[in-house]
Amino acid sequence: MAASVDEYLKAAVEVAKKASEVINDALHKEKLITTKDGMSDLVTETDQQVEKLIIGTLKERFPTHSFIGEESVAAGEKCVFTDNPTWIIDPIDGTTNFIHRYPYFAVSIGLAINKELAVGVVYNVAMNELYTAVKGKGAFLNGKKIQTTKEKEIKKSLILAGVPYARDVKTLSSVFGTMQRLAELGCDSIRLQGSAACNICTVANGVADAYYEFGIHCWDIAAGILILTEAGGVATNLEGGPCDIMSRFVMAASTKELASAVCQQLERIDCPSD
Amino acid sequence: MAASVDEYLKAAVEVAKKASEVINDALHKEKLITTKDGMSDLVTETDQQVEKLIIGTLKERFPTHSFIGEESVAAGEKCVFTDNPTWIIDPIDGTTNFIHRYPYFAVSIGLAINKELAVGVVYNVAMNELYTAVKGKGAFLNGKKIQTTKEKEIKKSLILAGVPYARDVKTLSSVFGTMQRLAELGCDSIRLQGSAACNICTVANGVADAYYEFGIHCWDIAAGILILTEAGGVATNLEGGPCDIMSRFVMAASTKELASAVCQQLERIDCPSD
Repeated sequence: MAASVDEYLKAAVEVAKKASEVINDALHKEKLITTKDGMSDLVTETDQQVEKLIIGTLKERFPTHSFIGEESVAAGEKCVFTDNPTWIIDPIDGTTNFIHRYPYFAVSIGLAINKELAVGVVYNVAMNELYTAVKGKGAFLNGKKIQTTKEKEIKKSLILAGVPYARDVKTLSSVFGTMQRLAELGCDSIRLQGSAACNICTVANGVADAYYEFGIHCWDIAAGILILTEAGGVATNLEGGPCDIMSRFVMAASTKELASAVCQQLERIDCPSD
Repeated sequence: MAASVDEYLKAAVEVAKKASEVINDALHKEKLITTKDGMSDLVTETDQQVEKLIIGTLKERFPTHSFIGEESVAAGEKCVFTDNPTWIIDPIDGTTNFIHRYPYFAVSIGLAINKELAVGVVYNVAMNELYTAVKGKGAFLNGKKIQTTKEKEIKKSLILAGVPYARDVKTLSSVFGTMQRLAELGCDSIRLQGSAACNICTVANGVADAYYEFGIHCWDIAAGILILTEAGGVATNLEGGPCDIMSRFVMAASTKELASAVCQQLERIDCPSD
């Protein structure tokens, strides 16, 4: 007999908490290492170790399920998304932050069934913030129901953006040019946090009003998108249609109106899809 | 008999904690208010109330001292900086964040004697992070000694910048153009937090490597600068000389080399001094 979504959620929360212990240990260990290059190696190690822990644990409980994990794909596995229940996992979203101990990095675990997101768990390790959602049952932060703002206009919004790993002038002109336009249009302000999963949850929690980014991957956003939509928000593509998690773009906002208003200010940055 | 700097520190910490209770109450009250405009009024009220609490408490203990407070200056008092012991106070640094409950806003209390910073207290209310420093005695976060990184190059740095309240195209082009240049030069990334006091303390704590901003005021940075320098960092003007807290500019960095490297990328934005 197939497990219920509540069991899936419970399993995801349990393994996210175990993962956070490993991540916290690694943060502590880093104090013995003096160079950031040494730290980068540690990050890769921790990323891989945590992904193995998460996939291993879930595979044992749900042996027929499929898995898409950032590190597995980096190691050469194909990113195949079918109707089979599929866990989409980022062991540490916000790697640069993890290196610097900047407190926005998270374990992100999403489950899609028939290609629809059913369960989402994002755990901000440093802040001890556990965001959870099950399709149709609302979104929660540490067990307390959360909801987005009702903001519809750029003018009153706090907007989150991303800084890409790509450093070519064309991409960067587009990225910072967009931020400038949003500021010119009078948004309350712009914040850069450096973690897609944390960004989406910050919108879900009604602290920021919108977040957009080109270049992100499905594992960065799958869990977060369910948390956002269950909190009353919307995730769209550039044209206002539903967000395709494989498309390398996300527009996450409190309302459809705000998503559309922000999208109108964006220049498309093409990335090969997942 | 004049009190010792340790007594000044103790008084500043006590009143910062009292202030944080008032701020937390206001955050809670806000939940009853549905519009952000309502929230803006509450912020103004809270700013004024907290500044009165801080100045009133310190004035009672140290009646011969002078005071510079953001709200007092906004209400028309002159910003006079003499050799007399002078408390420099921002009741809530990061007002936009406070409105959105974005967790970077802080009580900032600095004391200068003979125009030299002697005591600094920055309390990030939402994160419950109390940064303290006394001249010559090191810097502390919740009682634990902190220090900056030893980073000297832009290439490996996590850099904090500010988004100005000013929204003219010239200022914004300069602000976002600079961020783009730093990204092109290969800094690890850029973060925008929205509180000068929190930004400086993030550098002091070795989490970010550098922070710069035009347009800030002495009350935003006075306490933070002492915390930074006591943590081993440097605060400079645009030419690499010592930072004048009245100059509306701060370059805060882990090392003199990094401060200089970042300053070389900046375009001066002129602001009338405090």
